[in-house]
Amino acid sequence: MSQPPLRHRVLGIDPGSRNTGYGVIDTDGQRSICIARGCVRVGQHAWPDRLGLIFDQVAAVVAEHRPHEMAVEQLIFARDATAALKIGQARGAVLCAGLKGGVVVHEYSPKSVKLAVVGTGNAEKFQVQQMVRVLLSLSDQPGEDEADALAIALCHAHSMGIPQRKRAAASWRDFRP
Amino acid sequence: MSQPPLRHRVLGIDPGSRNTGYGVIDTDGQRSICIARGCVRVGQHAWPDRLGLIFDQVAAVVAEHRPHEMAVEQLIFARDATAALKIGQARGAVLCAGLKGGVVVHEYSPKSVKLAVVGTGNAEKFQVQQMVRVLLSLSDQPGEDEADALAIALCHAHSMGIPQRKRAAASWRDFRP
Repeated sequence: MSQPPLRHRVLGIDPGSRNTGYGVIDTDGQRSICIARGCVRVGQHAWPDRLGLIFDQVAAVVAEHRPHEMAVEQLIFARDATAALKIGQARGAVLCAGLKGGVVVHEYSPKSVKLAVVGTGNAEKFQVQQMVRVLLSLSDQPGEDEADALAIALCHAHSMGIPQRKRAAASWRDFRP
Repeated sequence: MSQPPLRHRVLGIDPGSRNTGYGVIDTDGQRSICIARGCVRVGQHAWPDRLGLIFDQVAAVVAEHRPHEMAVEQLIFARDATAALKIGQARGAVLCAGLKGGVVVHEYSPKSVKLAVVGTGNAEKFQVQQMVRVLLSLSDQPGEDEADALAIALCHAHSMGIPQRKRAAASWRDFRP
């Protein structure tokens, strides 16, 4: 028997002042497939033009894939105030592009994203990359920014459908190479 | 003999996560008049909807007044990383609204804004308010956020036309009540 279609489309974004990863998944809260993934690279452009480019390219992803919801990592701390100010501006550009595209925005803490995808809140970057590859049956290992964005999208997908106990069971420990 | 028209329109913005002051001036680099001023208040709205509202309202000011340039205060430090992250996002929304409206963005340090308008880089808020009122011949004292925005616009106007010596001469000391 064929499986029912995955009706919910989620855009995950990992904003940065140089690289902004994005990932689009279709999900029913338990099963998810990757629709698109990539990275908006603006490091070679002058500031503040970078913000306009981030806004445009995220707006283009929203226009092309029409996600129902957007999930972004909730930044609670940063290295210092200067770094926070830069990433804050990139984040503002990303959120505005989503909000202007009519997408509902959700925020998740970095710890809850790692917990949802890897099964531990202290996961390393390579564990997130590996688990995203396994959970979405990707043919290749996604880059760090793409993997983080897809992990945020998966975190939102999991929060929609899978009970806490089942989520904890599907952990890094089950899939590590 | 009547004076030539003030052909250059500048939008000054003082972004904040609750209140974003704005001021529009027409200027020739020496004389300036106030065209519009106000404050986008979003403190009662939920986060991140505030960012969408800031973007929309700044975009509306840009669409209505068609400024040639936008001037924004360059934030170099903040109270802490959390505060920097919030103000950074508001700033991102403001800059995107300007860039999407086709406006060239300029940034000035808080010190250079105070120096340009009051004549000292360590000016107090009330001195900025008073000098903005005098320089633009306003009938009433502008609020803090509006005054800061108009001061940023005036700083940009001054940087266009008045030589350094003349700028230093037109200082707070000449106009204080």
